[in-house]
Amino acid sequence: MKTAYTFTGRLLICCADRPGIVARVSQFLYALGANILDASQHSTDPKEGLFFMRMVFQLEHSDTSREAFEASFRETVANPLQMDWHIDYPDHRKRLGIFVSAYDHCLQELLWRWRSGELAVDIPLVISNHESLRGITESFGIPFHYLPVTKENKTAQEAQALTLLTAAGIDFIVLARYMQILSPLIVSSMPGRIINIHHSFLPAFAGARPYQHAYTRGVKLIGATAHYVTNELDEGPIIEQDVARVSHRHAVEDLVLLGKDIERQVLTRAVKAHIDDRVIVHGNKTIVF
Amino acid sequence: MKTAYTFTGRLLICCADRPGIVARVSQFLYALGANILDASQHSTDPKEGLFFMRMVFQLEHSDTSREAFEASFRETVANPLQMDWHIDYPDHRKRLGIFVSAYDHCLQELLWRWRSGELAVDIPLVISNHESLRGITESFGIPFHYLPVTKENKTAQEAQALTLLTAAGIDFIVLARYMQILSPLIVSSMPGRIINIHHSFLPAFAGARPYQHAYTRGVKLIGATAHYVTNELDEGPIIEQDVARVSHRHAVEDLVLLGKDIERQVLTRAVKAHIDDRVIVHGNKTIVF
Amino acid sequence: MKTAYTFTGRLLICCADRPGIVARVSQFLYALGANILDASQHSTDPKEGLFFMRMVFQLEHSDTSREAFEASFRETVANPLQMDWHIDYPDHRKRLGIFVSAYDHCLQELLWRWRSGELAVDIPLVISNHESLRGITESFGIPFHYLPVTKENKTAQEAQALTLLTAAGIDFIVLARYMQILSPLIVSSMPGRIINIHHSFLPAFAGARPYQHAYTRGVKLIGATAHYVTNELDEGPIIEQDVARVSHRHAVEDLVLLGKDIERQVLTRAVKAHIDDRVIVHGNKTIVF
Amino acid sequence: MKTAYTFTGRLLICCADRPGIVARVSQFLYALGANILDASQHSTDPKEGLFFMRMVFQLEHSDTSREAFEASFRETVANPLQMDWHIDYPDHRKRLGIFVSAYDHCLQELLWRWRSGELAVDIPLVISNHESLRGITESFGIPFHYLPVTKENKTAQEAQALTLLTAAGIDFIVLARYMQILSPLIVSSMPGRIINIHHSFLPAFAGARPYQHAYTRGVKLIGATAHYVTNELDEGPIIEQDVARVSHRHAVEDLVLLGKDIERQVLTRAVKAHIDDRVIVHGNKTIVF
Repeated sequence: MKTAYTFTGRLLICCADRPGIVARVSQFLYALGANILDASQHSTDPKEGLFFMRMVFQLEHSDTSREAFEASFRETVANPLQMDWHIDYPDHRKRLGIFVSAYDHCLQELLWRWRSGELAVDIPLVISNHESLRGITESFGIPFHYLPVTKENKTAQEAQALTLLTAAGIDFIVLARYMQILSPLIVSSMPGRIINIHHSFLPAFAGARPYQHAYTRGVKLIGATAHYVTNELDEGPIIEQDVARVSHRHAVEDLVLLGKDIERQVLTRAVKAHIDDRVIVHGNKTIVF
Repeated sequence: MKTAYTFTGRLLICCADRPGIVARVSQFLYALGANILDASQHSTDPKEGLFFMRMVFQLEHSDTSREAFEASFRETVANPLQMDWHIDYPDHRKRLGIFVSAYDHCLQELLWRWRSGELAVDIPLVISNHESLRGITESFGIPFHYLPVTKENKTAQEAQALTLLTAAGIDFIVLARYMQILSPLIVSSMPGRIINIHHSFLPAFAGARPYQHAYTRGVKLIGATAHYVTNELDEGPIIEQDVARVSHRHAVEDLVLLGKDIERQVLTRAVKAHIDDRVIVHGNKTIVF
Repeated sequence: MKTAYTFTGRLLICCADRPGIVARVSQFLYALGANILDASQHSTDPKEGLFFMRMVFQLEHSDTSREAFEASFRETVANPLQMDWHIDYPDHRKRLGIFVSAYDHCLQELLWRWRSGELAVDIPLVISNHESLRGITESFGIPFHYLPVTKENKTAQEAQALTLLTAAGIDFIVLARYMQILSPLIVSSMPGRIINIHHSFLPAFAGARPYQHAYTRGVKLIGATAHYVTNELDEGPIIEQDVARVSHRHAVEDLVLLGKDIERQVLTRAVKAHIDDRVIVHGNKTIVF
Repeated sequence: MKTAYTFTGRLLICCADRPGIVARVSQFLYALGANILDASQHSTDPKEGLFFMRMVFQLEHSDTSREAFEASFRETVANPLQMDWHIDYPDHRKRLGIFVSAYDHCLQELLWRWRSGELAVDIPLVISNHESLRGITESFGIPFHYLPVTKENKTAQEAQALTLLTAAGIDFIVLARYMQILSPLIVSSMPGRIINIHHSFLPAFAGARPYQHAYTRGVKLIGATAHYVTNELDEGPIIEQDVARVSHRHAVEDLVLLGKDIERQVLTRAVKAHIDDRVIVHGNKTIVF
């Protein structure tokens, strides 16, 4: 007697554009009896010649397991078309590790939405270089690891963080206003899987004290940017941005408060897009389906 | 010797959801040698069970003409799957008829963007129940027809309008602040092809004098709505909406001025979506890909 | 030896417009040695003929107490000019009573911002017709009162609520998604001091299930409205509104989630404006300085 | 028999903050029988210690002429308090000179709103380094001056422009996408009276080709900035900014089109604020009341 497999998959694809890609993928799915629940596609202009696609499909009572699906897709579709591809399954709860320093607003927002069920992830740990957010973290039942960083111990502490992340089986990291620069060790271990919230509308005011700079420059809008972390500081692929209107009435402290609200929202939207496998990173840009 | 056909097509599809639709369509296209340039799909939840898709494809040096393509698609794909479908071609410039009364801002915006090449349509005529916008219209080289409407002559004038529209081979109509209610005669002759700009954020303040009502009610946002016209006044499928922030400082006249800006933008975005075959009307709602 | 008084005051004024009001008020303040920190004024058009003003002033080492200030202002300025007026002091922390039912997002947002110091109020109690938010409330160290409401006990429970509010010296109330209609007893006891968050962009979709209605109508924007409560349901003076963009991709549940985010933000902004004495209610409208 | 003067004035004031300024000004106005129609005030934090105010007042059937008003205000209020001040009168139609190159969208928007009465200015001339917009300009009945600029003739042409501006009695200049850098000669002749629209959300992407840069960087928002021109390129005081949301679907050309829409709106809002004497420039920032 055969086992019947029922699952939903999310397929992300990037390859050189050419006729027949959609047909090939959808034909492959149809032959297995899969129903396509959602599909989005993007082709760049002919000069770049790139093809991106996200397909969500469902198999019900199939005799194809996930492993069999992946092996077959690789062999008959992905490899022949030289695809960069990725698959994940909504019933696989991604495991999120959060890094935070002393600002609590982004951490709070994530934990709260997580508890309400809006963020369908597991959060096995929060790592911080300060003790101050231990209480909040543990009140949500999440282990809190205090790893203070100095110039001397930075390498050791990062190694320790990496050990914790590995032990916890972390799938992706969110830097929820973590005020340390992650070393290439960690960054290169999770390419396209570390999300940072930058307290500025990048590329304006990259670096520290953006609200002070915004005030000094007298801008009429301030913003925040969520991006994947690369080893180029503040230069990684942008996932989401937003702004709010300000005026001469906003003192620097007002800008900071308003900025926190934008940061919370922008970070949340970026994290949700990542969880739902909506983001393809290509070069230094994102396609967010 | 065969003729070689090269064309781009935009296919809009609505049918009951079931496995294999994407595969069937993309396989059909692939078999003809077509390249899919853009594809979007939307499935409603299983209770509604509807499938919507927009596909943009390109055939190059093919031996399939448009007529042959359409006949073949109808027979081998659309009919078997009981699709509601529509195809149009970007190189077919749609023919737009504009109705207007005395407000010039929406007419101006459309004509200006048309002249700049942003709206890829032909505009064979403007019909108005006032003489006042003849000068502007004719300065763009577009024929202007003055059809004043009274209770007595309304039927006759609408028949006359319909004759003009038919003679001009109009594909779709924009009511650019036309202050008459179109009779069912015209409305039913062009279902899903008459776009109205309503000077309100529907469903709030449906009907006349919305800015006066907004002022009286003290709302903090005012808006505008572009929708397809049906015989239910202000109740047709919404294509696009937007709002702007207002305060106690805005007198009614200020709301009117600001409203005009929103109307121009909202109408433009709706008209562009229609021109690019991005809108599927289903029941009283739109899917705008 | 005299006592030296140092305080900041916020003066809200509404009266018939006529020459000399600003001069009279600012002259009065200057004569006492007060510095004007912020001033905003609004005159309606001559037909309405109304004058509104907010002035923030500071007295340092003055021999005028608050009581003396108020008495003198009443006698020499407010009464002669027949002003509706109100004064409050930033160092007087307003006392906020929160009513809530089962949705936690608005309560959470308020308590969180309160703990961070962003909302400079005391919160002596939360009243709910459900037990479910006791844990959250008490984790912030705030007393939680469970007053379940049935048709039979409604009058008694409201009397009980009023007793609690009075005993706690409540200055204003926030209905943070409280799903009961407050009786005229409570409403009329605190005119212009009960803030409700309505889960809709009023006046569209007043009443229950606005997100279902928004979905059915296919709107492209959804919103939320914070308003003062009057005995006309959903008709009280609007303080703040906002919207978010939606599309056919949003199922009703998505609209609900997105709506919660807008509700949180709109309610917060309205509550802050109230705390800072920025709102004047006149008739059924607000002036928010 | 005395002449009776009736006029409305707009007073802009900047000075060191100290008690009694509002009282002094409003008392001065009241003593002349003036009614204050609108007043806004802004004090920076004590460290900066600056006071800004805009007052709109009305004198009816007064025996004080504008000249007498200004002389008296200077002597009895402005000089004693060491004010930077400026007065203008709504019935004085400011004279606007427009510089433009080949892009027509900003010019069109300004001329159109001017004709509709929305911009209460006179426009005695348009100056361009291209011939291409002569037709549009002259169709509005406005003289068009073609002053092509080369490295060799730049000084001579700017002198010629200055002669034209002076002869026309220009009050302020708008650079409606003028692709030349104005020489210090003109810039320093009209400090705080030359408005430029920059096709970027400054300070990001200052300089040329911002949409190409925005595309390359993969930003999710693009913007535009209206600012006063100083001799520091792109660094002058910002008057107004706005943004629009973009995605991977926007090719560079799409960004350019969308950018034009933002530029039109941002420039219009900035020009209106300037016409209504709402802007005070202080250092490199603006206060926009």
